[in-house]
Amino acid sequence: MEERLSDLGEAELLRRLAAWAPAGQFEDDAALLEERSGRLLVINTDVLVEGVHFSDATMGARDLGWRAAAANLSDLAAMGCRQVVGLTVGLVAPGPTPWPWVAGVYDGLAEALQRYGGSLLGGDCCRGDQRLLAVTALGHVGEGPIRRGDGRPGDLLVSSGPHGLSRLGLALLRQEPEVYAAGFEGTALAARAVASHRRPQPRFDAVAALEASRPAAVPWRVGGCDSSDGLLASVAAIASSSHCTALLDRQRLPQDPDLAPLGSAVRWCLEGGEDFELVLALPAAWAGALCRQLPGCSRIGELQTKEHPSAAGEVLWSDDRSPVKASGAAFHHFD
Amino acid sequence: MEERLSDLGEAELLRRLAAWAPAGQFEDDAALLEERSGRLLVINTDVLVEGVHFSDATMGARDLGWRAAAANLSDLAAMGCRQVVGLTVGLVAPGPTPWPWVAGVYDGLAEALQRYGGSLLGGDCCRGDQRLLAVTALGHVGEGPIRRGDGRPGDLLVSSGPHGLSRLGLALLRQEPEVYAAGFEGTALAARAVASHRRPQPRFDAVAALEASRPAAVPWRVGGCDSSDGLLASVAAIASSSHCTALLDRQRLPQDPDLAPLGSAVRWCLEGGEDFELVLALPAAWAGALCRQLPGCSRIGELQTKEHPSAAGEVLWSDDRSPVKASGAAFHHFD
Repeated sequence: MEERLSDLGEAELLRRLAAWAPAGQFEDDAALLEERSGRLLVINTDVLVEGVHFSDATMGARDLGWRAAAANLSDLAAMGCRQVVGLTVGLVAPGPTPWPWVAGVYDGLAEALQRYGGSLLGGDCCRGDQRLLAVTALGHVGEGPIRRGDGRPGDLLVSSGPHGLSRLGLALLRQEPEVYAAGFEGTALAARAVASHRRPQPRFDAVAALEASRPAAVPWRVGGCDSSDGLLASVAAIASSSHCTALLDRQRLPQDPDLAPLGSAVRWCLEGGEDFELVLALPAAWAGALCRQLPGCSRIGELQTKEHPSAAGEVLWSDDRSPVKASGAAFHHFD
Repeated sequence: MEERLSDLGEAELLRRLAAWAPAGQFEDDAALLEERSGRLLVINTDVLVEGVHFSDATMGARDLGWRAAAANLSDLAAMGCRQVVGLTVGLVAPGPTPWPWVAGVYDGLAEALQRYGGSLLGGDCCRGDQRLLAVTALGHVGEGPIRRGDGRPGDLLVSSGPHGLSRLGLALLRQEPEVYAAGFEGTALAARAVASHRRPQPRFDAVAALEASRPAAVPWRVGGCDSSDGLLASVAAIASSSHCTALLDRQRLPQDPDLAPLGSAVRWCLEGGEDFELVLALPAAWAGALCRQLPGCSRIGELQTKEHPSAAGEVLWSDDRSPVKASGAAFHHFD
């Protein structure tokens, strides 16, 4: 029988699509282009589809615009960008869509550009059955690039901040039973979680701290990506592209402490997704300096030589070397 | 009552969206970015939606991929690009879509990149109700940029080739009654028309001829755009952005001579769209040299000082100064 996209899943699909691109091009969050001056330009395209990535139930137009911009800008930060050049936007919507919804989306996009720099470089707009935003972001790398495959055995793994809060925000917006039972509604934590889901912050500040904390004797080499698909997925991606095994420290999971009462806290930390933190693999001295300099940044594990040839991308708990298992509840765009 | 997108139409919508971008940014087919070395990078995003821009009835997967790439690359050529850097692609499709369809689209994209240069820089892929491609193209300007607003009174208007063939191809693929009656089916012309519709050619060769034909004494200044939305729309856009009135020469319409028997030939030449030729406004000496150098390229009219303040963008027949009227049958994405 003919294979269908829903049989493949997103990861396998992207693996196959990479065959049409130059080798290694699809490994990273975005593409790197070297300008004549030697400066590196980063370019990244993301598509957000109503009913898959957003819905009116969880997000208004202005938040959607912010989020579309922020998710893309996070991919720039994850490649080592400090400076945003701008965004192009392709907007699709059904004919009966009210104009103020479109204006709201553009207000949100503009607000994010005002906050992080860059300008709206262009846009296309056309009719379709479903609301959808295709955003391309461009930016310039600062001191050096961050690449998934630039981790090395012995590197420490660090996270620029805690994980799970965005997933709690989604649970609150979706009125999932667990968060009702936990009595989170209306609390300051709930407000923080919803804001984290609706208004993610690309971590350009973490890139700045990374640059500032590099010890003079350590040359630029940083493995990493952002944690938009979840902390575990980002650690696995770095380990896989760097041909290493990753060890995660069970005692140092970057959980938001306020989430501890929730039964799902560990799962959401590992797999909740959309926290848009940076997960980095660095020489130990640099990792230590970064954690001292950047509040909220912490060591979460390390990379080591893979134990057998097929183990690249394996993620193990450091104490008992058992695999860190995904619950399977992660986000799959072709489910 | 609240305004809806279908009340606005595409032109008004783009006019409004331009308010979020730097002044003048949305005037052109694409955005220009100056690199540190002074070289100009061009970036352009287009979205193609099934049922609006393509359908299985008129185009297979591989042709669709070619066409999506070619339409975007044409916008690069229309800005004066000679060199393609590459494309990013966001693909949306329902879960039951067969994998070979996706592979076919990527084959077509890769074929166009092989022909015109550049590489696949990245891709995103996700589930949606409707098939859709969002393509962003990047390229470098050669000797100088081409901008809609760079025409001046006294410039000659030239077209890099004939118009209407792509619209005939669409009519044949849609089995429109007029082309049946004309007996075009199965002729060499029909094959040429269908190929023109399915496999448009971005006119990088016309940009090369433009550079090669510039008289030494004439500095670089070229008004222009591509004719993807139709010849009349492109002439009106150049006139409007250049604050001029355009005169079209009725005797010099760039019609494909083989189309003459068709009642719609003139309308399709003016409004058929998707021929992806370049329409340029140039000083007379340069225009003459270009037409001598580039086969199929011809003078079609001129720009003149606008007759009254509100006349910018007016397109008149040169003989009797009557307005060149659109039939209203042009392509509107929010109809």
